[in-house]
Amino acid sequence: MKQETIDRIRKFTEDRDWDQFHSPENIAKSIVIEAAELLECFQWDGENFDKQHVQEELADVIVYIQNMLDKLGLDVDEIVNAKMTQNETKYPVEKAKGSAAKYDQL
Amino acid sequence: MKQETIDRIRKFTEDRDWDQFHSPENIAKSIVIEAAELLECFQWDGENFDKQHVQEELADVIVYIQNMLDKLGLDVDEIVNAKMTQNETKYPVEKAKGSAAKYDQL
Amino acid sequence: MKQETIDRIRKFTEDRDWDQFHSPENIAKSIVIEAAELLECFQWDGENFDKQHVQEELADVIVYIQNMLDKLGLDVDEIVNAKMTQNETKYPVEKAKGSAAKYDQL
Amino acid sequence: MKQETIDRIRKFTEDRDWDQFHSPENIAKSIVIEAAELLECFQWDGENFDKQHVQEELADVIVYIQNMLDKLGLDVDEIVNAKMTQNETKYPVEKAKGSAAKYDQL
Repeated sequence: MKQETIDRIRKFTEDRDWDQFHSPENIAKSIVIEAAELLECFQWDGENFDKQHVQEELADVIVYIQNMLDKLGLDVDEIVNAKMTQNETKYPVEKAKGSAAKYDQL
Repeated sequence: MKQETIDRIRKFTEDRDWDQFHSPENIAKSIVIEAAELLECFQWDGENFDKQHVQEELADVIVYIQNMLDKLGLDVDEIVNAKMTQNETKYPVEKAKGSAAKYDQL
Repeated sequence: MKQETIDRIRKFTEDRDWDQFHSPENIAKSIVIEAAELLECFQWDGENFDKQHVQEELADVIVYIQNMLDKLGLDVDEIVNAKMTQNETKYPVEKAKGSAAKYDQL
Repeated sequence: MKQETIDRIRKFTEDRDWDQFHSPENIAKSIVIEAAELLECFQWDGENFDKQHVQEELADVIVYIQNMLDKLGLDVDEIVNAKMTQNETKYPVEKAKGSAAKYDQL
């Protein structure tokens, strides 16, 4: 995400004085709530979905994720790279290729 | 997120030939599942949480969000800015300031 | 659910002195967390699932629902019948038959 | 739940010819979606919640759980008792009493 998009999200929260509601716990609840609204786009039909609606719900999840990164002072590249290192170990290419099995089933 | 982090996520999927499992519906399910694991960090105590664990679960959500953006060919700045424009209209500063009420309750 | 099953759930909580953790909010988080574990049984393949695993995750959701009913002093038949009356109005047979559309799209 | 409440849920689905949408996977998605709506009652404030709204969202989860039990031909007492036997073993009273720790942390 570009810095100006991140800044817009931050300003939105600041202008409304909403930081007081943004405890990590409340943001975690919000991420699940919005993720479930995203899933609702696929509730009865996984194939034919309203892409515009999907984009909006996906954006809602992304905004709360940015709120969480801000609240906890996290660097997105740092935490994602740390997790990718774990994932690469848990799912070695030679075992995981073409398989949807969970790492403890590989 | 930096381009090289995004590329690492894409290569991870490609190397394992996992694109076949990444239907938008399956990714939407995965986002909720990981978001709920993030919430689990706050299940019984919203105050005292394991920050390391939070970072890992948050990273999992972010990775699936990148998968969804890739799958649908979406530009993150475009969809977030479009949603922020909506949010700014739904939550005007003068009404929403300091209030956690939903837009239809303002 | 039979009274003896309900009593077993209650005794389990009592014996462990867990009522202190069972705020309605914490139980609501727990219901989502377990519901997402249920969904995980269908994460990459909606057709071929492990029925034994589904049963276990479904049971976990049911136990937390009983905890919520107990915590709020709710009668399951009363709240379900009240909601069914609403649903029957929102989804009239002649409009909803054979359609998965949401009530506001009918 | 009383037999007549269960029958009302079944008749509601039958009358609308909705069994065709009720794959186990779709019901699992629906349970998470409704569970997240229940959580939304506690999104920004875990203490002061709208009990009427909580009841309605809880009822929605319960209805989908009944749909899942019906779809899979499961007996609620059987699956809950099987899980309670597991839980009683995983959380022995002497270790778990007064603790919110997960079984693998006890």
